[in-house]
Amino acid sequence: MPNTDRTEPSQKNPNKINAGRFFENFTLNEVIQHATPRTISAGDAALNIALTGARNPLHCSEPFAQSLGYATAPIDDLLAFHIAFGKTVPDISVNAVANLGYADVRFMQPVFVGDTLSTSSTVIGLKQNSSGKNGVVYVRSTSVNQHNQPVLSWVRWVMVHKKDLDAPAPETVIPELPAFVSAANLSIPHSFSAESFNATATGGKYFWEDYQAGERINHSAGMIINDSDHSLATRLYQNNARLHFENLYIPNLQVNTMDAVAEKIGKRLVYGGVVISTCRALSFGGLENALTILAINAGAHANPCFAGDTIYSYTEVLDRWELPNRNDAGALRLRMVGIKNATPAEISELKPQNSYHPNVVLDLDYTVLMPRKGNV
Amino acid sequence: MPNTDRTEPSQKNPNKINAGRFFENFTLNEVIQHATPRTISAGDAALNIALTGARNPLHCSEPFAQSLGYATAPIDDLLAFHIAFGKTVPDISVNAVANLGYADVRFMQPVFVGDTLSTSSTVIGLKQNSSGKNGVVYVRSTSVNQHNQPVLSWVRWVMVHKKDLDAPAPETVIPELPAFVSAANLSIPHSFSAESFNATATGGKYFWEDYQAGERINHSAGMIINDSDHSLATRLYQNNARLHFENLYIPNLQVNTMDAVAEKIGKRLVYGGVVISTCRALSFGGLENALTILAINAGAHANPCFAGDTIYSYTEVLDRWELPNRNDAGALRLRMVGIKNATPAEISELKPQNSYHPNVVLDLDYTVLMPRKGNV
Amino acid sequence: MPNTDRTEPSQKNPNKINAGRFFENFTLNEVIQHATPRTISAGDAALNIALTGARNPLHCSEPFAQSLGYATAPIDDLLAFHIAFGKTVPDISVNAVANLGYADVRFMQPVFVGDTLSTSSTVIGLKQNSSGKNGVVYVRSTSVNQHNQPVLSWVRWVMVHKKDLDAPAPETVIPELPAFVSAANLSIPHSFSAESFNATATGGKYFWEDYQAGERINHSAGMIINDSDHSLATRLYQNNARLHFENLYIPNLQVNTMDAVAEKIGKRLVYGGVVISTCRALSFGGLENALTILAINAGAHANPCFAGDTIYSYTEVLDRWELPNRNDAGALRLRMVGIKNATPAEISELKPQNSYHPNVVLDLDYTVLMPRKGNV
Repeated sequence: MPNTDRTEPSQKNPNKINAGRFFENFTLNEVIQHATPRTISAGDAALNIALTGARNPLHCSEPFAQSLGYATAPIDDLLAFHIAFGKTVPDISVNAVANLGYADVRFMQPVFVGDTLSTSSTVIGLKQNSSGKNGVVYVRSTSVNQHNQPVLSWVRWVMVHKKDLDAPAPETVIPELPAFVSAANLSIPHSFSAESFNATATGGKYFWEDYQAGERINHSAGMIINDSDHSLATRLYQNNARLHFENLYIPNLQVNTMDAVAEKIGKRLVYGGVVISTCRALSFGGLENALTILAINAGAHANPCFAGDTIYSYTEVLDRWELPNRNDAGALRLRMVGIKNATPAEISELKPQNSYHPNVVLDLDYTVLMPRKGNV
Repeated sequence: MPNTDRTEPSQKNPNKINAGRFFENFTLNEVIQHATPRTISAGDAALNIALTGARNPLHCSEPFAQSLGYATAPIDDLLAFHIAFGKTVPDISVNAVANLGYADVRFMQPVFVGDTLSTSSTVIGLKQNSSGKNGVVYVRSTSVNQHNQPVLSWVRWVMVHKKDLDAPAPETVIPELPAFVSAANLSIPHSFSAESFNATATGGKYFWEDYQAGERINHSAGMIINDSDHSLATRLYQNNARLHFENLYIPNLQVNTMDAVAEKIGKRLVYGGVVISTCRALSFGGLENALTILAINAGAHANPCFAGDTIYSYTEVLDRWELPNRNDAGALRLRMVGIKNATPAEISELKPQNSYHPNVVLDLDYTVLMPRKGNV
Repeated sequence: MPNTDRTEPSQKNPNKINAGRFFENFTLNEVIQHATPRTISAGDAALNIALTGARNPLHCSEPFAQSLGYATAPIDDLLAFHIAFGKTVPDISVNAVANLGYADVRFMQPVFVGDTLSTSSTVIGLKQNSSGKNGVVYVRSTSVNQHNQPVLSWVRWVMVHKKDLDAPAPETVIPELPAFVSAANLSIPHSFSAESFNATATGGKYFWEDYQAGERINHSAGMIINDSDHSLATRLYQNNARLHFENLYIPNLQVNTMDAVAEKIGKRLVYGGVVISTCRALSFGGLENALTILAINAGAHANPCFAGDTIYSYTEVLDRWELPNRNDAGALRLRMVGIKNATPAEISELKPQNSYHPNVVLDLDYTVLMPRKGNV
């Protein structure tokens, strides 16, 4: 099947097929409104459980959520993120060579069944590569609910093909990005209180004070990702990146840090968000009281994941922060490492020769909210 | 495994297993009430997205639906059709040799979460075949909601086995069927208005006036259908036709025009409705503003589809109609062609030697509602 | 991959991973509150249809449920059971050698969308085996709704490893268990009435009086269980038993009567609950009016089931009971036999040489509620 058929749809259907933006089509400070606003439903939440096996009661028990001050059970943080993110794909990354990175991912408001998420992106940086064939685009994307309140905000940068190689290079602008979202910038849901936290509901025995920086937790459970599992999830997120649905032959594909594909493939790549959600669900055993995600500081999809892979994970505790003006809960900065086809015990060094161990599929730096012992 | 085990269940369990109607059991003008009324839920709508990847905001964004005059987001037209259709299978087509065709499929009312659909069929035609072994049954099926309002109505005809070969042939009655549902017979939801249509929500740049009869759109995306994908969908529709769930060995199976199987198979046939919904979702890229289906004029499942097939599609614009007394929106009559394991660019002739190209799986003639440019 | 990695997670992560209870950790009369209370949603109900193909209108038609006196459609009895059961796995059976049996499973209240189920277990029996390496634990588990009303209650017994072989054997206590739930102990939903039962909705022609003890019904339909099907279902139930999600190599695994695995396996075992729900859905053809499950009297997973197996079933009528003070409906005690890769007609003897036929996967003794003819 000739590759040209897939890379040049716009030439064959000049009028109707949106071929997506190429590097020269992005302008600094441009705001892009993404299509398909999405109302979150009870069906999305149930599918998230069926797809991940998530057992965090915050997202599946209304009384438990209410005991923490929520109006009702919010949906899984990562489900909201994947749905919001999916909307940016047709405009931002459909012609991407590589997804290079994430930064400053903030979870600003809980999302409830009935909320409608709309996502937009602002171009905050541009840098044409020295080859002149492509360039790096930095966007800050924000998803708002039906009250126009921001619920999620994140920066990502992607390498995008130029189509018109004669188009002039834009001025290089590289945004300054934080290494991590600081404690002061974390958004705790305003009605949240862990004063009545019921550890029976989570089954967790360990609290914020019990986790020490440097500690490693090898989560025992693993999970095989089936073909339909990742297809269903990626479609649920309305992420239409073609390499998740077709066995694309991708020549000259380069290694990158997010959605990396290390070699030419003739099979479907599992969407990186599926790997993140799988690892998060597997890590429940050992992090039962990590109630909600406050931030993703950085992330790398170290190696590609395909259907049939068995995913395991381990967590390193990076840091432990008090939160301003509260002693019912604190923040933990964690490193969640996803592994394919090997157990955590078999991975002693993450980067044995300065590059990722071939069985490592995810290296995610994120921050969670956890009740403190003193108040329980 | 002896085939008789499957074709004669009624002989082994004379009292309790409903073997379904054979040709001699159908009577002209008979009305058949089908079992299992079905209340549509938010779970059905979410599963429809997970199964198809549909991105049409009309079915997943409450505010967008409300901006068009709907009380809330209606469910996907085809989801409603497949659910309504599934109910007819045990009574109409369980002993069918072949599903021969569809006509005059009308989408009469939007269906919302909470609506309960009940389906009945009237026998409107009968013709015993010259062999005396089977005959063609024509039924008009109608699905009503809990207010007894018709929401869907369609004609199909199937070839059904006779069980008692000595049963006398009925009088031959062949109903007159329209080649397509005319503009005057299309039902626009009575509160619908495209005056406030927001093209940002669909991402579509093209309107009713932009589509020209004869124009062809090669949709770029493809999708592999996994085993669980089609099994989940067909079960969700409560369509219990056995060839979708068991690896039946079907001797002497004949080519037909709907749910066609070209050869003896030892694997499960993907339900034709799954192919239709997949193609409709893939065709969003290029038909973003085709908001809702008003009619299916005719359809053929040109070749069988099995799990593992990659589905692509293209659309030909057949006609463009003004709608009576309105200038906010018009109708487009489209031909949606589904292809397996080849891209649209590889299919130049639909019927190279007077029969369908072996990679073509669907040839569907349908009519959609699209906003007009003038009012946007 | 060394097996020790899986059997001794607690040694490697002494502080944070809950390795679950070993035999010596159970104490007679101890009450264990299980984690993850679960609010049932419309998404769960839709997924149950997509996963099983269930066509019983009681669980998918609000008007039909209301015509029988329910406030709205209750969720499928077995969906409620599997969700409630899943919560007990981390505390009761994570270190189980074998699930030995079930008894006295009572369905005490219908469960509706919006209900939150919380499950607890009481240790009602203990018996260390003569080897001193493991023992049998009997628990009565009860699931209550948000009003603290019991909705489900059941006894099961599992063989669990000892970790500390020097721990003293507890006093042997073996609870007395009923062979079946008697008619007097069945809970009919208090507002239930079959006086307005509409057989058109079920499509069933046979009523309580029509079924005779000793009668056998060979259900004609079969269903292949796909990898994703059982993975999705087991995750939806939040049942995290590892052998359903990883290709565990399990040495010295013994044959047992529930979740039996006859040999060392290198593939995932389909959760027994998936087999039960599949058989129940397949048995709709012939038991259309078996509206709801009142009890499970006993059950054996006779042989393991793996993805790719085609499941068939037959039903034997064991008994027919009048219900106290009512003549609108009665109870039927049924034996539902699940078969893999063979049709019911091929299984004449359930236990040809005193052990289960190798194609038999399920032998379930249960009791259903069915309308009586007199009142319809």
